[in-house]
This record gives sequence, structure tokens and C-alpha cells, in this order.
Amino acid sequence: MDTQKIIKLDANDKLAARRGLFNLPEGIIYLNGNSLGPLPFSVPQHLETVTNREWGEDLISSWNRHGWIDLPQRVGEKIAPLLGAEGGQVICCDSISLNLFKLLAGSLQLRPGRTRLLTQSDNFPTDLYVAQGLQQLLGDSRCQLESVEADQLAAVLSDDVAVMLLSHVNFRDGAMHDMAALTRMVHQRGALVIWDLAHSAGVMPLQLDAWNVDFAVGCGYKFLNGGPGAPAFAYVNRRHHEKFTQPLWGWMGHKAPFEFGNDFIAAEGVNQFLTGTPSILSLAALDAALDCFVELELNQLREKSLALGECFLELMEQQPALAEFVLVSPKEASRRGSQLSFAHPQAYAICRAWADAGVIADFRSPDLLRIGFSPLIVRFAEIEQAVLALAEVVRNGTFREARYQQRLKVT
Amino acid sequence: MDTQKIIKLDANDKLAARRGLFNLPEGIIYLNGNSLGPLPFSVPQHLETVTNREWGEDLISSWNRHGWIDLPQRVGEKIAPLLGAEGGQVICCDSISLNLFKLLAGSLQLRPGRTRLLTQSDNFPTDLYVAQGLQQLLGDSRCQLESVEADQLAAVLSDDVAVMLLSHVNFRDGAMHDMAALTRMVHQRGALVIWDLAHSAGVMPLQLDAWNVDFAVGCGYKFLNGGPGAPAFAYVNRRHHEKFTQPLWGWMGHKAPFEFGNDFIAAEGVNQFLTGTPSILSLAALDAALDCFVELELNQLREKSLALGECFLELMEQQPALAEFVLVSPKEASRRGSQLSFAHPQAYAICRAWADAGVIADFRSPDLLRIGFSPLIVRFAEIEQAVLALAEVVRNGTFREARYQQRLKVT
Repeated sequence: MDTQKIIKLDANDKLAARRGLFNLPEGIIYLNGNSLGPLPFSVPQHLETVTNREWGEDLISSWNRHGWIDLPQRVGEKIAPLLGAEGGQVICCDSISLNLFKLLAGSLQLRPGRTRLLTQSDNFPTDLYVAQGLQQLLGDSRCQLESVEADQLAAVLSDDVAVMLLSHVNFRDGAMHDMAALTRMVHQRGALVIWDLAHSAGVMPLQLDAWNVDFAVGCGYKFLNGGPGAPAFAYVNRRHHEKFTQPLWGWMGHKAPFEFGNDFIAAEGVNQFLTGTPSILSLAALDAALDCFVELELNQLREKSLALGECFLELMEQQPALAEFVLVSPKEASRRGSQLSFAHPQAYAICRAWADAGVIADFRSPDLLRIGFSPLIVRFAEIEQAVLALAEVVRNGTFREARYQQRLKVT
Repeated sequence: MDTQKIIKLDANDKLAARRGLFNLPEGIIYLNGNSLGPLPFSVPQHLETVTNREWGEDLISSWNRHGWIDLPQRVGEKIAPLLGAEGGQVICCDSISLNLFKLLAGSLQLRPGRTRLLTQSDNFPTDLYVAQGLQQLLGDSRCQLESVEADQLAAVLSDDVAVMLLSHVNFRDGAMHDMAALTRMVHQRGALVIWDLAHSAGVMPLQLDAWNVDFAVGCGYKFLNGGPGAPAFAYVNRRHHEKFTQPLWGWMGHKAPFEFGNDFIAAEGVNQFLTGTPSILSLAALDAALDCFVELELNQLREKSLALGECFLELMEQQPALAEFVLVSPKEASRRGSQLSFAHPQAYAICRAWADAGVIADFRSPDLLRIGFSPLIVRFAEIEQAVLALAEVVRNGTFREARYQQRLKVT
């Protein structure tokens, strides 16, 4: 890998023009779109319209006039193509955690007599916490979480498992599961599956319908670039619409909320997934951000994402100063999501010193440097600059200074 | 009541200057702040800063640099004085519905052996739905919702009631409970109380600490003017902090979220109330909106709110055309919140025709015209114009036209 080759990669980048859709700060190389996606230009424009014109001028009538009431469904429909989902199965609301609670509880009800929730021990913690909270609420006789290593999932999958909850791409090491194969395996035992797509939606083609997935959740603020704490989404496969019920009943999930009836009657289809009044401003930001994906071939996202990672790896190997970084992500590109993670005893301080050198990546406890590749914005030339800057940070040793060693509240 | 008197009321209005904080559309009289508060000028300015500078330029570092991570608590602290709550007991997150689920489930755990949830049959529907959903999830042996008329609450309050859930001000008729007295009554039976403050926070002084209230929830988008679907708030009295647990466990309610540990350990105090990642943009809008309440004597809000309602009633009585409207709100001002509701068989169509005449109020199924008085924005002169416009709408009969009779999706 040399500069000539990198120039060629950028010249042949079919997604290069998409970068112009984002308002990126000057002089920053942003390798953290898997933590917080950057700001699309479309967002502040749309937020201003929704705030000043819709809220400010049209006030309460905007629920009808500007379709606020259907916004969770409309944003869901925009996300659906990224998931390989036909219409009417995706809705945007609340957080991943809350949506997982709904899906886990709903799955238990769909599989009466089965009590176990199966997951992977290094799943994203909130996925574990939600399941633990449900177990604590329902009691062990109705709900038991079992967390095992990834290679033990098949072995412990017995007929009392109601649902398996997995992250498609692991947030720490970026390892990616074979969603189709694991879904088949789970269905063979009569169980259901919930996929957490936080680290895969928006960077690769997905085929939830074709893979026969039951349920999924995903994040609005990572690769979908919907802004800090953007609402999450949920996918409920159409074949479950008739029998699925989730327990967080609220007026927005009612069949006729504005009749203000005293008894809950669930709305049809994915609409019953709503609970309270949706956050219109946050939803509107995500709505506008999703325009960055319009008329995009999803295969191009995946190709570029993997090429960026391979480029990073090749360039790293050329830097003796970086020999101490241990790749913890799968070596085989096809088994990774859109990130690379390296273990290093000084990962925290190095991550901060690298940021001061203009390269934003992420630290994940206890010792991981996590590098995310947003194919819509990152250039190959930036990968070269980033690796050179990392080597320089390691060589000059500034990361050893106290200011970089001290832990911030959010790491 | 005559125009001279109304001019005097406006001249003596100590809150008159606050109206200048809001971006109100020209030619509109807005009597619907109890449905969606109007837009404060501070909001779009602050949203632009948070979007363009914090998200756009400072990206992920904003969680530390701009204190996004503490925003639910900081907004809670801004709301606390409106509730009569000392620090560390109010947090802003999710929706009323979701926060009620947390509090109802948490209350059952605080009162082991007690299974009943007591509420009022005409409570706001989502409050009923949340309780019904919890009952359906836990089963009747652990949770039973009992809904009775307001005047039956004392009679059915037995020793197996774990918690009573009431709205302080009824969304339909505006009737207000005596929160202090009912809280005492509930405590005498060893039960807990949850107050829904959706229609009282921001229009009257409240004394949650002094009244010894256990828990409360409230709305960010009505009288707090935080924008459509703004996050809700929750109050957890300090004396419950040690033993209270809510079941919607998520990483933001963890004691150390960024250690990414596998087991949920609840954060201390009200912080454990969080579940998923907070919606920063929606929270930021509410944060800015709350500045409209800075250095305000809350008694002035209540005085003006009641004076606006009395003025409306007096002027209505002077209009023979309005004789068919039946007041369903309490006649005695001190027993009302900040609204008046009138039954009329044509309430829906009249409400829409009134809107076309420039006065925005609300219809509530089946036959209520609901008129809200936001003391920060409404002028007495507007009350006079509104009543005259209503009389004209009734007299000229335009409301009988088909376009006004047809129901919109959101009513």
C-alpha cells in the first residue's frame, strides 16, 4: 500500500460524492461514526423548518398538517430498505434498551412454557441489562437469562429457549455473526431471534425478510447519523403481527388514541410498538439524516467499508511503531463489521492523544482502541494520514502525559 | 366585565413581559398550551448551537465537553423548583407512559404482598393503559388495576393497595385534586402515591417535598413548552432512593456505564431512572424552553391562570349565543387547573371553525371544547377577542359546513 494506490482508491470511490452531504469540521479525521455519526447538512435545515414553521407557526395543527402523528412509521419506512424489510414492519421510537424490553417480553409471550433468554456473554451491556431487568421483574420461574460465549450458543440452545438475543456485529471487536445461519439454527429449535443491528445497519446490506428474522432493533445515532441519542428502530416481522404483544402499553400504541377510551386495544401491526408521545424534534433530525442514503447501492457501502479497514491494516503493518497493537477483530474482512479494534495497554491515553492530533476514534474499556469506518464520509487518504498520525503519537510518547491518562466521565 | 376592566387587567399583569419570550404567530390566539406549548425564542437558537457547534464540530467529545451526559439531570434540576422539589430528585427522560411503567412496577416492589394499583376511571388513558399493560405482564396474582370514580377513592383504599396513581388535574374537565390531602390519606393506609402532573406543572406552585409525595411524572411539551413530544420528567422522593428499583434496566441507569460490565448495578438516586441513551436534541429544546421560567414567582402563574379563566367565564355569560355550552369544569376556580371545558354536541366542528377564526383551542372526545390558559403568553384582551369570536362562530353557523364536521386523524 502506497500513496499512489491510495490516490487511486479515492479516485475510484463510488461513494466519494456522499461526503459532501456532511458538515465535517476542518482538519478532523473522523473514525468514530460507530459511536456518533457526523452531522448531515440536511439536519439543521430540516430542524429549523420543523421548529420555526411547524411548531412555531402551525402549532398543534402540525400533528395533522405536517404528519407528526405518522413520523415514527415514516422514518421506519425510510430505514426499512437498509434492513431488507418490506413495508409495514419497521418503526422508529424510544431507545434500543426500551425496544429490547418490549421484544424480549413479547417473545416470552409468543413461546409459552419456554422461560430462557439466550445471549452472548460479551453482548453490548445494555442488551444484557434489559434482559436482567426483565428477569428480575418476572422472576426466575418465568424468565432466565443465560449468557454464553459465542461458540457455545449452538450447544446450549435447547427446547426451553424462548428467544435468542444477539448483536449482529460485536461492539468491542467488530466480529460479525452469520445472521441467516444462526436464525435458521434458532428456528430449528422452535425459538425466536432478536438481532441488535446497532453496528451493522447503514454500513452493509441486510436481508431481514429473506433471512426470516423474527425481530430486530437498531440505533439511530451511529451509522444512520441521526444525532446524539436519536430514536432507535424496531423490526417486527409481519408473520408475528397478529399474535405479538409488547407490554409497554401507551396511548400511541392504541388502535384509536384520540377516542380516549379506558381500555387498551392494541393498534394493528407494528404500530402497537409505540408507547408514549414520540419525540418529534429528534425524529425529525433522523428523518432528514436518512436522506443521505437515498438511491444508494448498499453493496457499495459494504465494499468501501471493508476496503477502508483493509487499507488501515496494511498501512499499520508498515509502521514498526505500531507493532504493539494487537488486532482483536477477525482477520478475515468478511467476518467483520465496519470497524477494527486493537488491544494496547495504553489504548485510552493513545486514543486521546490521537484525537489531539486530529484523528477521532474510540476507546472501549479496558484496553481497546476502536476504529470505525463510515463509508459515506471517510476517504482513503484520511486512512493514510490517520495511521501516520497514530505512529507519530506512539513514537513521540505524548500520550504518557498526565492530561491524557486521566479518565473523563464518558470514555 | 367590560373592555375597560380588561385593559386594566392587562396593564396590571406582572407576567406580561414574559410573552415576549415566545415566537407566537401573528393573528392567532393560542388557548392550547395544555396540548402543545408555543415556541420560545430561546429554543431554535439553542438547538442551532447544539446541532451545529456541539454535534457538528465537537462531535463525540460533546458528551463530556458540553455535558450531554448529565443533561437529563440538569434539565431535571431546572424543573425541580416548579415542583417544590429539592435537588437530586427530578430527572428528565423518556415519556410519561414509560416513566409510569417504571414507577408502578417499582412501587409494587416497595410494597411486597400488596397487589392492587388504584386509579381514577377517567384518568388520562395512557395512565390506565400503562397499568393494564403491567397487569397483563405480571398476571392478576401480582398486579390488579382498580379504577373507580374520584369520590370512591377513599372508600376502596384498603391495605392491599400498593400504590395510587392519580392525575393532579384531569385532562378532560380540569378538576384538580387536593394533592396534600390525598397523599396523606394514601400514606395512612401504608400505600404509595404517584401523581401525574401533566396539566399542573408550570402553571401553579407545587410542593411535592412538603406534601410528602412519593413519586410524580409530568410532561415536557405542555405548559413547559419543550416542543412536540419533549421528554417527560419523573420525581422520586429522596426517602425512596435507597430501596426503589425500576425494572427497565439500561446502560444509562448503570452505576458505571462506561466500564461496560456484564451485570447491572443501579446508579445511585434518581440516576437509575434512566434506561437508554437520552435524546439530546429533544432534551436541549426543553432545556432552553425552561429558561422562560427563570426568576418567576410561581404564585403569579396561578393567580393569572385563574384570572384568565374567570375572565373567560364572565365574558361567556354575557353572550346569549353561548348559552348552550355547559361548563363541565368545577365552578370554583380554586378547584380547577389552568383550563375550562365545556360540553357542546357540536364541540368538534365549533373548535375547528373557531380555529379558522384565529382562536386555537382543543377538542376532547366525545363532546368537549377544552380551553387552556398559559399564563406566560395569554393576554386578557385575547380572552375578550376569543369569546367574541366564539359567539360569532356559533351565530353565523359556519361550523355546520361539511369541512368542519369531518374528523381529522389527530383531534
